[in-house]
Amino acid sequence: MKKKELFENIKHKKSFLCVGLDTDIKKIPPHLLLDDDPVFAFNRAIIDETAAYCIAYKLNLAFYENGGVEGWSSLEKTVDYIKTNHADQFIIADAKRGDIGNTSIMYAHTFFNNMGVHAITVAPYMGEDSVTPFLNCEGKWAILLALTSNRGSNDFQLTEDVEGEHLYEKVLRISKNWGNDENMMYVVGATQGNMFESIRRIVPYHFLLVPGVGAQGGSLEDVCRYGMNNMCGLIVNSSRAIIYADATGQFAAKAGEAAACIQKEMAFFLSKKRII
Amino acid sequence: MKKKELFENIKHKKSFLCVGLDTDIKKIPPHLLLDDDPVFAFNRAIIDETAAYCIAYKLNLAFYENGGVEGWSSLEKTVDYIKTNHADQFIIADAKRGDIGNTSIMYAHTFFNNMGVHAITVAPYMGEDSVTPFLNCEGKWAILLALTSNRGSNDFQLTEDVEGEHLYEKVLRISKNWGNDENMMYVVGATQGNMFESIRRIVPYHFLLVPGVGAQGGSLEDVCRYGMNNMCGLIVNSSRAIIYADATGQFAAKAGEAAACIQKEMAFFLSKKRII
Repeated sequence: MKKKELFENIKHKKSFLCVGLDTDIKKIPPHLLLDDDPVFAFNRAIIDETAAYCIAYKLNLAFYENGGVEGWSSLEKTVDYIKTNHADQFIIADAKRGDIGNTSIMYAHTFFNNMGVHAITVAPYMGEDSVTPFLNCEGKWAILLALTSNRGSNDFQLTEDVEGEHLYEKVLRISKNWGNDENMMYVVGATQGNMFESIRRIVPYHFLLVPGVGAQGGSLEDVCRYGMNNMCGLIVNSSRAIIYADATGQFAAKAGEAAACIQKEMAFFLSKKRII
Repeated sequence: MKKKELFENIKHKKSFLCVGLDTDIKKIPPHLLLDDDPVFAFNRAIIDETAAYCIAYKLNLAFYENGGVEGWSSLEKTVDYIKTNHADQFIIADAKRGDIGNTSIMYAHTFFNNMGVHAITVAPYMGEDSVTPFLNCEGKWAILLALTSNRGSNDFQLTEDVEGEHLYEKVLRISKNWGNDENMMYVVGATQGNMFESIRRIVPYHFLLVPGVGAQGGSLEDVCRYGMNNMCGLIVNSSRAIIYADATGQFAAKAGEAAACIQKEMAFFLSKKRII
């Protein structure tokens, strides 16, 4: 999916919400466990009820790998289901991969060609040749970790080099030359709202994937104030607050309501920025 | 597997060789493609012929994920096969995972409990809470990326902070306090032989996993001179030079010969250090 198409979807849906399908078989409503593939059954129901209010789905690989062969099958079926039934959705494999060049080529092939997702999250530690294999596929994106929302982000991402530049700023500054704002995005943790300004100075035009609004504690208002650009430039993820909104037979409808609620707030910020 | 047991295996086998099962279905001998599971058939044959000369197997996840559900199945079968038939082997999932705490817990559960490998490679960028979930399981190991052997390692790993410390040195210095030399190892690229001295000053006792001897260009002599400690402290990986030593019906026997050749060299260095 190209940037223009993503932006059109955002304007059309009045939303820049990504629903995180971090589906834990231990947390899904018990009646689904009778299904042949409970994780897929859960995802399908959640997707059908939330698709009107979001523009993207993010699947964290940890939750699927935990199921082994069956988990990988649920993952593939979920991606296929979204592509077939909700073709306007941007699909992110939250895999945080990154390896030497030849191996990253394998990962890119797996996720972009075999599975058919639009984007994959990538860890920057191994540098350019670990990232560029994800940038050679038309309409596909690498979403590089820049500033994450967890406590451990302090350990290395905030290290200052001899010129006073933080590591996450260096990651942005160096890596933006490996690709462009049509094939790269960045993960920026929403709990660090005050850092959005320095990030936007370095990458004014790139889309930012913002996890951590909601359960992880960020404020949507701050994210929009500092992070939004003229093409929105934000994909804000919410996982648990939506998919586990309810644990009864009404789980999917309640997930839809939770997504609708965030979408309404997002429409307000898009309108305030005169994007819609 | 505990450190003492690993060391005993090294002394017994006179080897600190890890065979990298980076099995690409496009590169295996054509006659194996008739098998129900060609990747597993290839691995099994390679393992049986090389096990006498190595103390570890490393499976790079990229190569298995590339096969989707079938690839994941080949991976699980290979791990099971090693555990059942070559129980003294140390098994490494080269997965380079790392995510926020809760998600890393899922990954640790997948690889240590479900799959049963002994160690997993982990990327350090997200900091402490992304790594510590891999340190709470008796006899299991996190192998943290410190200095990798690829070209891109220059981009961020060699960044100097305000005190002149390189990022890879900071990763070693900070992370060694998260665990100890009984549950953490480090990936150190062998092409950077002259940096082993600074690494050994920071982590004198930890095992180092050294990729990149052979096809990636490092020298075993340099690695041993600068990196070996009194408990060996090295696991040196070789993948392509062993598993693709030959592409005929003799592929497994030739892989065994290639492994034996490296083992002989390793015995020399172990003897020189008076470990055997």
